[in-house]
Amino acid sequence: MSEENTQEPALSGNLLVAQSGGATSVVNATLAGVIEEALNHEDEIVEIYGGRNGIQGILNEDFIALDSETQQTVRGLHQTPGAALGTCRFQLRPQDHERLLQVFAAHNIRFFIYIGGNDSQDTAAKIDELAKERGYALRVIGVPKTIDNDIAVTDHCPGYGSAVKHIAATVREMALDNLSIAQHNFVSILEVMGRNTGWLAAGATLAKRRNALLEDAPHLVLLPEVEFNQQAFVEAVQNVLRKQKFCFVVVSEGVKDADGNYLGANATNIDEFGHPVLGGAGEHLLRLVEENIAGVKVRASKLGIAQRAAARFASKTDVDEAVLVGRAAVKFAVAGETGKMVVLVRDDLAGGPSGYAVKTDLVPLDEVAKVVKPFPAAWIGSDDKFSVGFQFTKYATPLIQGENPVAYEGGLPKYAYLSGARVERKLERYDTLR
Amino acid sequence: MSEENTQEPALSGNLLVAQSGGATSVVNATLAGVIEEALNHEDEIVEIYGGRNGIQGILNEDFIALDSETQQTVRGLHQTPGAALGTCRFQLRPQDHERLLQVFAAHNIRFFIYIGGNDSQDTAAKIDELAKERGYALRVIGVPKTIDNDIAVTDHCPGYGSAVKHIAATVREMALDNLSIAQHNFVSILEVMGRNTGWLAAGATLAKRRNALLEDAPHLVLLPEVEFNQQAFVEAVQNVLRKQKFCFVVVSEGVKDADGNYLGANATNIDEFGHPVLGGAGEHLLRLVEENIAGVKVRASKLGIAQRAAARFASKTDVDEAVLVGRAAVKFAVAGETGKMVVLVRDDLAGGPSGYAVKTDLVPLDEVAKVVKPFPAAWIGSDDKFSVGFQFTKYATPLIQGENPVAYEGGLPKYAYLSGARVERKLERYDTLR
Repeated sequence: MSEENTQEPALSGNLLVAQSGGATSVVNATLAGVIEEALNHEDEIVEIYGGRNGIQGILNEDFIALDSETQQTVRGLHQTPGAALGTCRFQLRPQDHERLLQVFAAHNIRFFIYIGGNDSQDTAAKIDELAKERGYALRVIGVPKTIDNDIAVTDHCPGYGSAVKHIAATVREMALDNLSIAQHNFVSILEVMGRNTGWLAAGATLAKRRNALLEDAPHLVLLPEVEFNQQAFVEAVQNVLRKQKFCFVVVSEGVKDADGNYLGANATNIDEFGHPVLGGAGEHLLRLVEENIAGVKVRASKLGIAQRAAARFASKTDVDEAVLVGRAAVKFAVAGETGKMVVLVRDDLAGGPSGYAVKTDLVPLDEVAKVVKPFPAAWIGSDDKFSVGFQFTKYATPLIQGENPVAYEGGLPKYAYLSGARVERKLERYDTLR
Repeated sequence: MSEENTQEPALSGNLLVAQSGGATSVVNATLAGVIEEALNHEDEIVEIYGGRNGIQGILNEDFIALDSETQQTVRGLHQTPGAALGTCRFQLRPQDHERLLQVFAAHNIRFFIYIGGNDSQDTAAKIDELAKERGYALRVIGVPKTIDNDIAVTDHCPGYGSAVKHIAATVREMALDNLSIAQHNFVSILEVMGRNTGWLAAGATLAKRRNALLEDAPHLVLLPEVEFNQQAFVEAVQNVLRKQKFCFVVVSEGVKDADGNYLGANATNIDEFGHPVLGGAGEHLLRLVEENIAGVKVRASKLGIAQRAAARFASKTDVDEAVLVGRAAVKFAVAGETGKMVVLVRDDLAGGPSGYAVKTDLVPLDEVAKVVKPFPAAWIGSDDKFSVGFQFTKYATPLIQGENPVAYEGGLPKYAYLSGARVERKLERYDTLR
């Protein structure tokens, strides 16, 4: 689908952009792309508003005037982690529908760009349907964002490449440190994110150098797509230790046992959606190794939030694509598209010497809303299920190429902070917690 | 003490360098400095040997020929984390003394450079005494190395600046991510290393921007030098949350309660020296906050090994000083010094526009061996003990200045791996585990 073919009537009004779900290293680069492109369409786009804390803030008319931010700040967003507008994990309820359209109408919002994961695309889809139902002229475009890389249709998700680059570099560095002390049997366990899918854990395998030697970490990778088998895991660790006395394990926080329980998750620790709070998989494996293998030293680490916030080590490819999808969203909206999400399409024929290039396209929101894209079964090692195949390396290697230089002040990265000039409220306050 | 004043007779033979204790981002830069400087002294230094796994490998004659490594590899050591020679935590026993001198004599070792922390300086001191006792002509120079910054006399320790730079940048990045979702009361806890001292945890405070706003993380810093008081901690968190709904806590793994127990340490998990394996302080505080403060979301992270291995984000100042102390060790040894450790002396008068410069000097090994330098009591906040004063900021800021560019291949840092050509054994094998 290309932007020239639309027959929609010209629309003019304000653009509202918001961020939703967990942050990534590059979700602000997408925001910058939206702002920068919106400035190119002054016939259609009058003001550029940022909605604070996603749809939850929008219901409360919590808007800031993005066109009043300095150019320096917008440029700084290309390298700033976190989600500068704030995010939410709020689900739009039937009783919010009327209010939402009131807010949009009161501020003459005609273009709505929602940057988020598969849950957020569902919210965007609902808003699009709602506007159509009520006859309110609105163009809604979703933009993918997640380190988990689990959004359907798009070749990959902005945020993923930078997270993988950081994880793989960290594995390489930790392994060098581990090897310093690995005179005897040593097991190093690193827990990474990925509640439902193994894309991030698989990404750690990029740490293996070309023509990987046997001892190149990581040696075992545990994905949520593979049911955890304690005996197979212990045997796999023993096999690696027999060969080289050092075993580096990467485990996704979302790995489950045969009963469907998350490894090490505490059943009493439940988040606001009733999901268990994860993050015990690494410690669980540590205890398993200690209890089942004699004479071994084990250490477990957990990257946590740092793996999605290390913008000083973002992938240039990822940053560029994050900007690209933001700009594309605005172009598509102005061209008359609505109810769709921007996707990245790998364009092998257009690739330069590296053989890699992408272009943007659109997909209907209801094809991606709430859909989770698993790690392909065919890419999981057929023998032991603790490795991934060359198909993954070929897929993921282009996504971590290039470094994104960040500015420094006083020896630390200088990140951008929005001044956040508030847009005046036009309606009564509204309590989303009611 | 300067290198020109010595009256020692000229000595000629082989140089042996080894690394001991936990690795840092820059302990290989020190190794590179030793190799590069040794090549300048061909009248005195015949061969350059690397001892694998510290004194433990040396007793086993486990030597590699460092002069046969390529220039590219040695240059690569300036940016490679881990300890390329391997390390040990082995204590020299009386029954090893005879063997040690046999090994040194068999390989005509006349210069011995030991890179390590305060325990390792004790080993260096013993070797120096032993050689003197037995009339074996040997020059022993210790070189400081530790991310903990707890070695006495030296102004600071190579390895510390890079660890602090990484920790402070990570705090700044995590806080940006945390703030994205911190609509309600949110507590973020980051556990850092530092078994005995709070230098690393204090370093996190550099993340506060100049003219720090109230909301600048970290808000509370817990050092091992301050006895943990549960009530004071909970109240401090509540105070921060009342002001801004977001509280970022940095805790050293070495914090102890009034009974002298490490927070969250598992009494059944003891390492080979009988020390408890630490690393539960963050999780312990998480549970405390959840149990004592209603309506709050808490997340805990632990940087682990990554904080001492992130060479792609090393401080240029730290790398340069790591090389400097390595070179100085060789110069001092060739000039006739022995039984001493290289120290960094802050040279305020020589400082350029930044007001910061260092020079090297020597201190007798027995003044630093096994001595732990605590974080100064006068630099700890007098009111709540959860902050550090401007004196620390002034002290530590110069140590994190500058970035050390690393080479990349395939999107990841390209680190150096020693080819490790073995030096032929001359003696019978020796079992250090006997």
